[in-house]
Amino acid sequence: MDESVRITAEQIRKLQVQGARNVALAAVKALHSLAEITKAKTRKDFITELSEARDLLFASRETEPLMRSAISWIITQVEDSDERNVTELTNLVCTSSQKFQKNLQVSKERIAEIGAKRIRDGSVIFTHCHSSTVTRMLQVARNEGKNFEVICTETRPAFQGRITAKEMLAFGVKTTLIVDSAARSLINNADIVVVGADAITSEGNIVNKIGSSTIALLAHEARKPFYVVSELLKFDPATLCGGYEKIEERSRDEIWKEAPSELHVRNPAFDVTSRDLIHGLICEEGIISPHSVAEVMHRVYPWVFE
Amino acid sequence: MDESVRITAEQIRKLQVQGARNVALAAVKALHSLAEITKAKTRKDFITELSEARDLLFASRETEPLMRSAISWIITQVEDSDERNVTELTNLVCTSSQKFQKNLQVSKERIAEIGAKRIRDGSVIFTHCHSSTVTRMLQVARNEGKNFEVICTETRPAFQGRITAKEMLAFGVKTTLIVDSAARSLINNADIVVVGADAITSEGNIVNKIGSSTIALLAHEARKPFYVVSELLKFDPATLCGGYEKIEERSRDEIWKEAPSELHVRNPAFDVTSRDLIHGLICEEGIISPHSVAEVMHRVYPWVFE
Amino acid sequence: MDESVRITAEQIRKLQVQGARNVALAAVKALHSLAEITKAKTRKDFITELSEARDLLFASRETEPLMRSAISWIITQVEDSDERNVTELTNLVCTSSQKFQKNLQVSKERIAEIGAKRIRDGSVIFTHCHSSTVTRMLQVARNEGKNFEVICTETRPAFQGRITAKEMLAFGVKTTLIVDSAARSLINNADIVVVGADAITSEGNIVNKIGSSTIALLAHEARKPFYVVSELLKFDPATLCGGYEKIEERSRDEIWKEAPSELHVRNPAFDVTSRDLIHGLICEEGIISPHSVAEVMHRVYPWVFE
Amino acid sequence: MDESVRITAEQIRKLQVQGARNVALAAVKALHSLAEITKAKTRKDFITELSEARDLLFASRETEPLMRSAISWIITQVEDSDERNVTELTNLVCTSSQKFQKNLQVSKERIAEIGAKRIRDGSVIFTHCHSSTVTRMLQVARNEGKNFEVICTETRPAFQGRITAKEMLAFGVKTTLIVDSAARSLINNADIVVVGADAITSEGNIVNKIGSSTIALLAHEARKPFYVVSELLKFDPATLCGGYEKIEERSRDEIWKEAPSELHVRNPAFDVTSRDLIHGLICEEGIISPHSVAEVMHRVYPWVFE
Amino acid sequence: MDESVRITAEQIRKLQVQGARNVALAAVKALHSLAEITKAKTRKDFITELSEARDLLFASRETEPLMRSAISWIITQVEDSDERNVTELTNLVCTSSQKFQKNLQVSKERIAEIGAKRIRDGSVIFTHCHSSTVTRMLQVARNEGKNFEVICTETRPAFQGRITAKEMLAFGVKTTLIVDSAARSLINNADIVVVGADAITSEGNIVNKIGSSTIALLAHEARKPFYVVSELLKFDPATLCGGYEKIEERSRDEIWKEAPSELHVRNPAFDVTSRDLIHGLICEEGIISPHSVAEVMHRVYPWVFE
Amino acid sequence: MDESVRITAEQIRKLQVQGARNVALAAVKALHSLAEITKAKTRKDFITELSEARDLLFASRETEPLMRSAISWIITQVEDSDERNVTELTNLVCTSSQKFQKNLQVSKERIAEIGAKRIRDGSVIFTHCHSSTVTRMLQVARNEGKNFEVICTETRPAFQGRITAKEMLAFGVKTTLIVDSAARSLINNADIVVVGADAITSEGNIVNKIGSSTIALLAHEARKPFYVVSELLKFDPATLCGGYEKIEERSRDEIWKEAPSELHVRNPAFDVTSRDLIHGLICEEGIISPHSVAEVMHRVYPWVFE
Repeated sequence: MDESVRITAEQIRKLQVQGARNVALAAVKALHSLAEITKAKTRKDFITELSEARDLLFASRETEPLMRSAISWIITQVEDSDERNVTELTNLVCTSSQKFQKNLQVSKERIAEIGAKRIRDGSVIFTHCHSSTVTRMLQVARNEGKNFEVICTETRPAFQGRITAKEMLAFGVKTTLIVDSAARSLINNADIVVVGADAITSEGNIVNKIGSSTIALLAHEARKPFYVVSELLKFDPATLCGGYEKIEERSRDEIWKEAPSELHVRNPAFDVTSRDLIHGLICEEGIISPHSVAEVMHRVYPWVFE
Repeated sequence: MDESVRITAEQIRKLQVQGARNVALAAVKALHSLAEITKAKTRKDFITELSEARDLLFASRETEPLMRSAISWIITQVEDSDERNVTELTNLVCTSSQKFQKNLQVSKERIAEIGAKRIRDGSVIFTHCHSSTVTRMLQVARNEGKNFEVICTETRPAFQGRITAKEMLAFGVKTTLIVDSAARSLINNADIVVVGADAITSEGNIVNKIGSSTIALLAHEARKPFYVVSELLKFDPATLCGGYEKIEERSRDEIWKEAPSELHVRNPAFDVTSRDLIHGLICEEGIISPHSVAEVMHRVYPWVFE
Repeated sequence: MDESVRITAEQIRKLQVQGARNVALAAVKALHSLAEITKAKTRKDFITELSEARDLLFASRETEPLMRSAISWIITQVEDSDERNVTELTNLVCTSSQKFQKNLQVSKERIAEIGAKRIRDGSVIFTHCHSSTVTRMLQVARNEGKNFEVICTETRPAFQGRITAKEMLAFGVKTTLIVDSAARSLINNADIVVVGADAITSEGNIVNKIGSSTIALLAHEARKPFYVVSELLKFDPATLCGGYEKIEERSRDEIWKEAPSELHVRNPAFDVTSRDLIHGLICEEGIISPHSVAEVMHRVYPWVFE
Repeated sequence: MDESVRITAEQIRKLQVQGARNVALAAVKALHSLAEITKAKTRKDFITELSEARDLLFASRETEPLMRSAISWIITQVEDSDERNVTELTNLVCTSSQKFQKNLQVSKERIAEIGAKRIRDGSVIFTHCHSSTVTRMLQVARNEGKNFEVICTETRPAFQGRITAKEMLAFGVKTTLIVDSAARSLINNADIVVVGADAITSEGNIVNKIGSSTIALLAHEARKPFYVVSELLKFDPATLCGGYEKIEERSRDEIWKEAPSELHVRNPAFDVTSRDLIHGLICEEGIISPHSVAEVMHRVYPWVFE
Repeated sequence: MDESVRITAEQIRKLQVQGARNVALAAVKALHSLAEITKAKTRKDFITELSEARDLLFASRETEPLMRSAISWIITQVEDSDERNVTELTNLVCTSSQKFQKNLQVSKERIAEIGAKRIRDGSVIFTHCHSSTVTRMLQVARNEGKNFEVICTETRPAFQGRITAKEMLAFGVKTTLIVDSAARSLINNADIVVVGADAITSEGNIVNKIGSSTIALLAHEARKPFYVVSELLKFDPATLCGGYEKIEERSRDEIWKEAPSELHVRNPAFDVTSRDLIHGLICEEGIISPHSVAEVMHRVYPWVFE
Repeated sequence: MDESVRITAEQIRKLQVQGARNVALAAVKALHSLAEITKAKTRKDFITELSEARDLLFASRETEPLMRSAISWIITQVEDSDERNVTELTNLVCTSSQKFQKNLQVSKERIAEIGAKRIRDGSVIFTHCHSSTVTRMLQVARNEGKNFEVICTETRPAFQGRITAKEMLAFGVKTTLIVDSAARSLINNADIVVVGADAITSEGNIVNKIGSSTIALLAHEARKPFYVVSELLKFDPATLCGGYEKIEERSRDEIWKEAPSELHVRNPAFDVTSRDLIHGLICEEGIISPHSVAEVMHRVYPWVFE
């Protein structure tokens, strides 16, 4: 098989590629690359090769619904085609790959446009961690001439909140950074809370950076609307079939490098925010109630369930 | 005036002395030292000197109810005495000072004994930040032969949770450390939550390390008893008269040394936990409802209100 | 353009026509009138005229989703038709207009029949403001021979509750009127709470007369089912695209004619009731969970999203 | 008409056949039997006979949505067929009947497989009453080699919890039985709560054995996920049209045989659990949010609404 | 008996004197007047006369704890005195009466000073109805140079909110008036909510103008501190002995003069706010938890319980 | 030692004497009996004998605060007396014993009178289990001529609700009995909920028959006032010192005599109701907030803390 797939899978495993979006894009590009240089002579061989690539990529990280849906969709194009000519099939993979990337980009822009309408001039936005979809949405709002402030948590252990802060300052937005524990003290100053998502479950819950569910609870307590900003393809069909969204546990070194060896360190990367704490899911289909997300998927992306 | 008072006030101002308990002890010792070397010849001069010392110490940090009550009590001993002989009065300050220190020690031990009874064998205790009263309580429980686990947050920005973790390991307690944002994910594993206090307000609310009120909310959400462990003299009589418990705002450097200069950094040191989230206040008078703490103070320490 | 459209738009602007239903009917009739007397000679001219009428009517009041959907639907009939004969097109507008009015009437009756089944003999119904769909529903229940009582708020500032009270008395229903502030004192006496709606958002929230969301909260606190009774076409597709449901602010004179000039008077006409406080949305499709209303719209009125 | 229908209706009326599933199966078999021995000579006569059977069976117990949907579906097969030959029509009833039974069995197995994935090794499951779908799900989890414990209530007045307990012990599961009132004391020990369902309303609420809604509330209070395990065909289309799910009131003798005659005894068999207390509905379509169940029905079983 | 008592009782009955404070002051003055012109010759006769005055005043309005405590206290002074000379006893009534009035004035000023400390510069205060203690408190804060805004409800049916609004404007405070039903829409803009009280129950609940308990609930929902500002003598000892705080029902004409005669109109003047919704009770003893108010009364006004 | 003490302790151990009140009375009578027949010749011997009796009685059941306080108080009378004559001391025990019994009776009557005032004519009272103080209170209300209904749970496993039902019927009260699990279905029909108490903790929580805390939660959910009716001496001073109120675990046979031997049966007799769910504690001191019960004890029964 193409080295590209192997290398990409390795990069994903080692967290050299991070973020649901980036992981999916890397995997899609690896398939594209595989299609360009495959030596398969028959439809059957090519499909076998694609299946092996899929297995490798799926095994690279436990829960990456966007990446999995992307790969499944591209391979399904080939399987569903009647074409027997391998060149045509490799072309199909390449165009499908490009189409997927394009669609993801279009979705992101559409989400940003929709979400930007919820950012009012003179308001204060509270956010947690870093999400390129969230920051793009805020950038669009800024470009529309709106003045607003952003409060962001530092987001331990990896301090992604600092990235958010820097981007906001670059957009000319007044920005305040706090430790995660100060969220309850500051959230009363905010008008609206927005976070991204790593996965969406069939019940309508959201998996996102550790601490997100606490922020959601605090927003609810302070009667502030809490929005999740995400592409619908973060939906994980495995949860529909009873699979728990597995929470990745990262290295103890991220938290305390010199920790005593007998100390247990727990470092879950994500937590689950209940649909009942989410005011709306801002996605490419508009602003929806997360309670109906599985039905929206059936309407918009029925192939996810195949 | 004695240099000791000036130095102590300076150390408190510069956070070289920290923790409500340590600050109060340092101030009390400074008064003791002042009494030992005073050159005052008359009762009136000595009282003037004491008043100046009080003003200096009170001005050293905005909210230190324990220290304030300690100093007020010692000086009141002198003012209430009919004694005119300065030597007798300095002796009175010294014995009062020792008495106060003794009482504080006795209170701590009594609190530890009472609280230790709430630690069940085989249970899991969740805590936040570092409180010497809390860790003493856990040590007593350990010394009684109980086996239990402790989960502690790292407590950003100053990582006091690491101190708690080290002490727990030293007591032979199985200990787990997490980032503050992971509290909601782990609190379901706990049986009981305990924290210390920096101040107690007249309405029965508790001022403690930033993040404590979020932990209390999460404990409530997960139906886990949340206890505050504190000497009653942390009660702040100024709140009774309408004074807000002022929340100290610390240096931005504690959070992010290399932060962009245009970034606002908010670093409140404490937050306020509502009495309604507190299962019980473990104090030297026993385990009480925080709703009645002002009446308990009237019964046990009526001089605080003078 | 036909004067009728201009006059209708003016009447809507000046609140001479009120209520989502009445506004929509007036606008639909204005289009009908326009079609009857248009002088347009070509399909293109007629469509231009219709577009101008639409712009005028849309501009007459900020948020009237039912009216907007009605007009859009009628004009779409013309645009989607291949017909080039203007007479045929004007006929199409007239029949579409009549069809819309008919459907609205059918929906109202269907809603009344469905909702009437939730009115139990011997029960007490609590309502707020005046909604012709709600009162029709109660009339149907009364006509079925059920005995029940109604408690209604007076509904400041315009006292629409008095209209509801008079209608109820005319139906022979024992009726009690209270000030809005007494809702919490009386709601425990009720078995069920019903209100109408001015708009439905994509997240499943309901926009209705100011005070409705408080009644919903009180119903929830007292564990009484809170129903919203509304045609599905009150759904506002603009909210799907991020548009906030704009809350109309009415004249200060409605509240206090002789108010001191330096006094600020805020007079928002509506508020937003969260889907989580709504037991069920009684609509022409039956009694549904508001959380899925956007998907119901996609199934029943897909043209709304075009 | 065939005696079988009459006898079955009688058995259902007298509670000799119990449980939504068993009642539906008995009714379906009665139709099958009717088809086998009918003496109808014409399509019209056969349909009349089927209609009479339907009326008899529908009248046997007030609320049995599964049975009603089953019968309606089978009869609709005949009505929708153009066939005039009675033999073919009786065959159609027989195959439809078998198909329905088969589908019900397949659904049950699919639900068990999906739900079993939510049972974690080493976890504690809390349940109420007895549901063959729930116990099948736990059996599948056990067969997968998972070790878990079950806590079950005795479920007054008919002690169905004892049946659950015996089945669990037979599967080799460590089982604890408690009185219903001890649920709040023990639920903190559980990781997950699962119950069955007798009916599902159009708003997404669940009708199940008396006490279920209290268990749901306690699970919510203790932050434990509460799952309802049920075939989608328990959905009751009558609720969509405003019909209240009627709660059966059983004999006072079930509660206290020797009760004084002047004592009122209320013995409601079921209660209603709000969708907001339900973490997920585990059904043949996967784990879904109950808020969207009516839309799921429209997608999967559209004939239910005809 | 003196006409003054009879006239005062009549004025109270006819609501010509209103407000717990004014009613108490009028009654106290009537006793003073009675003492000045009494023709009683013996201690026994004077006490009889006082008792008759008490009975008359107590009967004038159902629940006026402040008035009742005032009268009881004054008469108790006479009863507890060993004095037999009637002139001395009338003097005792006069000085007691003046003392009570003085104390009430001192309490009000002390409450205003304490409460004013909770009004922060730049903050927004939300209030309901009119309370002279609340407006005095805001005036003190204003006199201290603080800038703040006030939002007040109009307070149907008697529009006392307009009085509050006018006073605020006179103090130079930016003021916004809304209908009662708009409280939920505006309360998120406030920093703090303050209301007065008509009575305090032994459980710590507060009786105040109809609508107050809803405002308290909304404040709690929006996480805004809700303070009750009141003299402790509003405490009603009858509630301790099981007496319900009777809620006065006023004339239907206050709500709708031209109401149809067959319309029931309910016009409760007050409602009860639970202690759990009250952040603090601002009284002459400081800011306390209402949960301990009965113990505070035992400490400060033990004679109330005699 | 006297056989009476030994026999009484045995009866308590074997549950032949039940109910906090009955247990305390039996123990007090045993001391009385001991005093009557003691052969002690010296004060010292008599005190030793009393101490042995105390140890025996204390050991008879784990948590009986009323009995423990009763015995402690009687013995303290002897210890605090300077009397050396044994006859005088035995007389002291006898009079103390009678005084205690008398006081308990007076308290019960006073509680019944106070509580009866909260029973309104025409209202519905919900209760759980059987408490002689609660039924006495309802009897007093009935004797006052009030008509009301009672709903009572059967109270598994020992069906004490049937005793309550029979007593109510004997008082001529319309009574409804339900299974414990039906409480949520019926509580909306009630106006007020009342239960007794077995113990009161220092934090203000109440220990009562298993299921009480669920009833309290349901009352809170349905916004119905929940009262606890109890003598203050149920207060357990051991909880003040950190002692957990130990929950007695009774025999499995009470639940299921023929239970499979491998089945675990948990049968906790009591549960703990949080102070926050309790509207008021109806005790001999009046109706108080449970949050201040420890301070009430310090005021009324200070000897309990010695």
